[in-house]
Amino acid sequence: MAGSSYGKLFQITTWGESHGAALGVVVDGCPAGLPLSADDIQLFLDRRKPGRNKISTPRKEDDKVEILSGVFEGKTTGTPISLLVRNTSQRSSDYGEIANYYRPGHADYTFDKKYGFRDYRGGGRSSGRETIGRVAAGAIASKLLLMLGIRLTAYTRSIGPVTINDSRFDIQAILETPTCMPDRLASEKAEAYLDECMKAHDSAGGVIECRIDGCPAGIGEPVFDKLDAELSKAIMSVGAVKAVEIGDGISAAQHKGSENNDAFRMQDKEVIKSTNHAGGILGGISDGSTILLRAHVKPTPSIFSRQQTVNRQGEDIEIAIKGRHDPVIVPRAVVVVESMAAVTLLDALLVNMSAKVENLQKIYHK
Amino acid sequence: MAGSSYGKLFQITTWGESHGAALGVVVDGCPAGLPLSADDIQLFLDRRKPGRNKISTPRKEDDKVEILSGVFEGKTTGTPISLLVRNTSQRSSDYGEIANYYRPGHADYTFDKKYGFRDYRGGGRSSGRETIGRVAAGAIASKLLLMLGIRLTAYTRSIGPVTINDSRFDIQAILETPTCMPDRLASEKAEAYLDECMKAHDSAGGVIECRIDGCPAGIGEPVFDKLDAELSKAIMSVGAVKAVEIGDGISAAQHKGSENNDAFRMQDKEVIKSTNHAGGILGGISDGSTILLRAHVKPTPSIFSRQQTVNRQGEDIEIAIKGRHDPVIVPRAVVVVESMAAVTLLDALLVNMSAKVENLQKIYHK
Amino acid sequence: MAGSSYGKLFQITTWGESHGAALGVVVDGCPAGLPLSADDIQLFLDRRKPGRNKISTPRKEDDKVEILSGVFEGKTTGTPISLLVRNTSQRSSDYGEIANYYRPGHADYTFDKKYGFRDYRGGGRSSGRETIGRVAAGAIASKLLLMLGIRLTAYTRSIGPVTINDSRFDIQAILETPTCMPDRLASEKAEAYLDECMKAHDSAGGVIECRIDGCPAGIGEPVFDKLDAELSKAIMSVGAVKAVEIGDGISAAQHKGSENNDAFRMQDKEVIKSTNHAGGILGGISDGSTILLRAHVKPTPSIFSRQQTVNRQGEDIEIAIKGRHDPVIVPRAVVVVESMAAVTLLDALLVNMSAKVENLQKIYHK
Amino acid sequence: MAGSSYGKLFQITTWGESHGAALGVVVDGCPAGLPLSADDIQLFLDRRKPGRNKISTPRKEDDKVEILSGVFEGKTTGTPISLLVRNTSQRSSDYGEIANYYRPGHADYTFDKKYGFRDYRGGGRSSGRETIGRVAAGAIASKLLLMLGIRLTAYTRSIGPVTINDSRFDIQAILETPTCMPDRLASEKAEAYLDECMKAHDSAGGVIECRIDGCPAGIGEPVFDKLDAELSKAIMSVGAVKAVEIGDGISAAQHKGSENNDAFRMQDKEVIKSTNHAGGILGGISDGSTILLRAHVKPTPSIFSRQQTVNRQGEDIEIAIKGRHDPVIVPRAVVVVESMAAVTLLDALLVNMSAKVENLQKIYHK
Repeated sequence: MAGSSYGKLFQITTWGESHGAALGVVVDGCPAGLPLSADDIQLFLDRRKPGRNKISTPRKEDDKVEILSGVFEGKTTGTPISLLVRNTSQRSSDYGEIANYYRPGHADYTFDKKYGFRDYRGGGRSSGRETIGRVAAGAIASKLLLMLGIRLTAYTRSIGPVTINDSRFDIQAILETPTCMPDRLASEKAEAYLDECMKAHDSAGGVIECRIDGCPAGIGEPVFDKLDAELSKAIMSVGAVKAVEIGDGISAAQHKGSENNDAFRMQDKEVIKSTNHAGGILGGISDGSTILLRAHVKPTPSIFSRQQTVNRQGEDIEIAIKGRHDPVIVPRAVVVVESMAAVTLLDALLVNMSAKVENLQKIYHK
Repeated sequence: MAGSSYGKLFQITTWGESHGAALGVVVDGCPAGLPLSADDIQLFLDRRKPGRNKISTPRKEDDKVEILSGVFEGKTTGTPISLLVRNTSQRSSDYGEIANYYRPGHADYTFDKKYGFRDYRGGGRSSGRETIGRVAAGAIASKLLLMLGIRLTAYTRSIGPVTINDSRFDIQAILETPTCMPDRLASEKAEAYLDECMKAHDSAGGVIECRIDGCPAGIGEPVFDKLDAELSKAIMSVGAVKAVEIGDGISAAQHKGSENNDAFRMQDKEVIKSTNHAGGILGGISDGSTILLRAHVKPTPSIFSRQQTVNRQGEDIEIAIKGRHDPVIVPRAVVVVESMAAVTLLDALLVNMSAKVENLQKIYHK
Repeated sequence: MAGSSYGKLFQITTWGESHGAALGVVVDGCPAGLPLSADDIQLFLDRRKPGRNKISTPRKEDDKVEILSGVFEGKTTGTPISLLVRNTSQRSSDYGEIANYYRPGHADYTFDKKYGFRDYRGGGRSSGRETIGRVAAGAIASKLLLMLGIRLTAYTRSIGPVTINDSRFDIQAILETPTCMPDRLASEKAEAYLDECMKAHDSAGGVIECRIDGCPAGIGEPVFDKLDAELSKAIMSVGAVKAVEIGDGISAAQHKGSENNDAFRMQDKEVIKSTNHAGGILGGISDGSTILLRAHVKPTPSIFSRQQTVNRQGEDIEIAIKGRHDPVIVPRAVVVVESMAAVTLLDALLVNMSAKVENLQKIYHK
Repeated sequence: MAGSSYGKLFQITTWGESHGAALGVVVDGCPAGLPLSADDIQLFLDRRKPGRNKISTPRKEDDKVEILSGVFEGKTTGTPISLLVRNTSQRSSDYGEIANYYRPGHADYTFDKKYGFRDYRGGGRSSGRETIGRVAAGAIASKLLLMLGIRLTAYTRSIGPVTINDSRFDIQAILETPTCMPDRLASEKAEAYLDECMKAHDSAGGVIECRIDGCPAGIGEPVFDKLDAELSKAIMSVGAVKAVEIGDGISAAQHKGSENNDAFRMQDKEVIKSTNHAGGILGGISDGSTILLRAHVKPTPSIFSRQQTVNRQGEDIEIAIKGRHDPVIVPRAVVVVESMAAVTLLDALLVNMSAKVENLQKIYHK
């Protein structure tokens, strides 16, 4: 309950600062019997790795994960899975001077107000490196979901003014473009836009979309722990996200009921919906169609142009941030959004197991 | 953890169905010593009451609250406060026929898939009446927040295509217009728009905005339980909400870093921000400026035009919903959004008390 | 988390004071589809009713339970079950004078220190009437457990110096003797002992035993949430309990390993244990044999002889408690212990459903 | 909620198996500003170290702790403190053969039933090495409690038939005797008794006592989360504990009310109790006097005499356990009990901060 844990039955606890000894996560409540190796996790971690190209920071973050517990003979044991990534390439010298002032758009000021002081090196706990634990946990959740026929796909929907064209949707491109856009043409335009931003010592925001296919109907709790409410928390808890939409989201609020309602129909003896404005969730519970969500990400606050701020002594000052910073957070956050959605959905699936007496009888029949 | 409770230290548990015997809430963890009467709570409940005018359902919901525990000699005792509202005017006959089919846009289908069956009368647990408990709890949270100098103000920002003009912002109008808009002119336009909708047997959506003034800096937890993440869950858990924004929200993702960053400045020896694109939260922690959020609400799914759906026997059918339904959910949801924000913020304030050793010493010094 | 809720997935939240308007419980997370009526619950409540005989208080507590939500067409719906018992026979006049002093052995002083003041009428929240909610919830849990073949039996093991003789164990006697002893001879002796206590204006303590038959092996979590740890919390949370034993308990600590170990053996192709010193739990997880626990209950603190204490003004005083009080708490606490054990075990069964990937596949197979 | 986390606001999550790569704990919710070094923690870990003498296993467990996060410039930052201990001296070969059968008194069988298989090396997750994380967390909690004037002292009360004599109580002896008894004479007798046990290829149990001095009145929640209930769970969650007593415990149940009630009296303008049968807790809330609890620990189940059991193939077999095992668990569990009590009490102190509106005003006054 102290804020670094997430999930009820599939519960992850992340820890670590940008420039501390290491970062990691403890995954508690993972069902026993899931085949799992460090490679499964490394695959996800590599998706958040910077340095692949010019639009991400030239910092080399060679994040190698180690499984310290909870896996035996290649399978999860049901006990906590502890995952560790050592910090290796962090150079504290870059950050020395931010100890004394508050970077606009960052959590420096709010940490000081909350805790009285902060680990200022590289943003400390509020660094993007905090997401290493989320992604490592997401790799595990995703693997188990896939065993149940559930697949998550997150990608960049837009960067600044450049948005993908759904008619050009190319799932391969997500892993191959530097922007994680599933549209190679849009990706090139976005890269050009980011070039301009960098030249202007500025940064850009964008939108991440995540779809979940194969989720059975009936998942999510009907009141406070609605599946969309849990997903919103999960996604909004990713640094820099400023808005979350489910299904048609904002657009739904602008349409009429006759436009927004999705008709139920029978198809091959299954209930389907003829449209999916709801984004796969009705009354907080999955309806069996694709779950769709969008995260709106603010521009990187670390920009190289001069900015006004105050220092810890309470004086107005002007600063110019140094160091190595991505001109856009979006591409590296794609796998983070996907991971948080995976963890959230798996947890909801576990919680839902006890929804019906009938399910208890399936597990505990003699 | 079973989904009908919300909050960590200030924890509310709601219960009740639309057409059951009663609805209510248990508020556990309310600090002792808060002056509280049934009138304090009734005031909030009356704000969600329908039947005030033509745009809300002619149902008479005369929701009188009774305090059953946790208050003694006019003050909260620190033990659970149980609040009860009897269902009086519910007519089950209106709902008999929906027992057998799934209304588009409602949770009928998903409840059946989750639980095997459902209390179909008036939507049962997924009815808007479920919010009675939230609002009753919100009244308590709001009263305590006000003692600490924190004030919440929620209102309708838009209905369909009609949006308020901030230059005409009139706080009195929130309680006086049938739309809960703080702009009387916009409200009239919105009413005209809703008239059209009703004539067309259709419904409209809209946007609710909530601002929180007076919140100290330092509230919220830095990782999963970010203040904005918790608020997102709280707001998205309100039925019909499809998107949540914090501060500039979606617009932030479309701006550059140089535009979106808020400069810190000194003013009267206090740190302030010269702008507030962030909506009062940085890194998940309040920064001392106004907290701003928006909820995007879908149009009422109960519309009177004919719709396609399926029945429990798995047959395609066509239906026309009867009964009494608001053409827009937004005005009645305003106080619900305000209440959920109040409960969330108060809980975060309680959790934050233990953030610093210094605070422990203030409470436990000899 | 605020302390009036118990359980993770089967979660109960109790509320109410001895002399308030009512007492009750919200049961959240009860699986859907359990047949349930008010009579099922009343049966349990009647077991904690006083006034059946001379050893319990002559107060008439005619506690009639009302189901306010969560049950439809005779079955649980999966949504919160709200249960209400109105306070009817409470006479506040009896308690007026205790407002100003601290009764020895009671929570008067500690409530004042914690909350600044207290509802002093009849002990307020720390009254034995608080257990009404526990017992009502226990009735539901017990009914569901019975459907799974699990049966709980609690009874009085001893009162003062009088202990039951296991060779005379008569399960019928539990409900028929005023002491709830399963040994009619011991019960008579205990009644005689209590007569003496009452004549001496004194009170007695005793021991409650609870056995759980039919629990499958594998229930309970291996580290903090061990089944015996959860049971200990549950039982120790019942007012007046001062010690909890599992299996041989205290006696185990006095034996050697060779005496205390239970050998595993095969019987009818099932693994059994040839003895059960462990009380059915190994490493915090049920082993398939009978679960056995004991609660040691202190003597009623309300005695009629003169006692020394202090008042709220900080003066030494001497008091003589008036009113109507049982000379022993044990018999009325038997059903409370059984109820708490039932709630705890059911919750552990629900949590355990997600222990294995194999179980997920049973529920979510296509 | 998945069972490897403990505490609400001061929350610890332990992980690791006996023969895995490492063991550790994440401490979330530790207030910022506590001076903390690895030495503070090592001091506690060394108290649970075996190999100090003949009554503990000759295994060399050179457990060196590393702080991976949450401490900056010598003080806790408020963010999660991750502590790691590498497994170095574990020899898996010793345990190969237990893979195939169920040791009596151990969790081998129950793990297999729960999870389908288990990490059998050295007991895996159910090994005593799991307590490393508890003790590391206990060191942090104890240090913070001491800053608030609260001191915990745990020690061995008895081993087999040998009990300490309170008149010879010598606090220094706890750390100096191999039994952790505060009575050197009793310790010698206990050692002689253990010698006999070892010669007979047998093992012994015993009793651990823990006292907490300096705790203010008012700590603990009045219903389910009573301080004694939480302590009971904490202590019973330590492997091998079979009973927990608070204050007079079992003996209280055998006394009369007139003997068991503690009179309140004024002393130096403070409320005190003239006796302390209650063990410092009334109605689940601390009363300001010494908190006293006892844990009854079963004999080590790993004994070298021949035992009957079954194997995974469901055959009756006879086994003789090899390896290195303590003849008694008690002395090494002393610091574990103290640690769990410290974590529990600190958590209760943090939760209690929000009990009164008055406390909020102390923290959030302008």
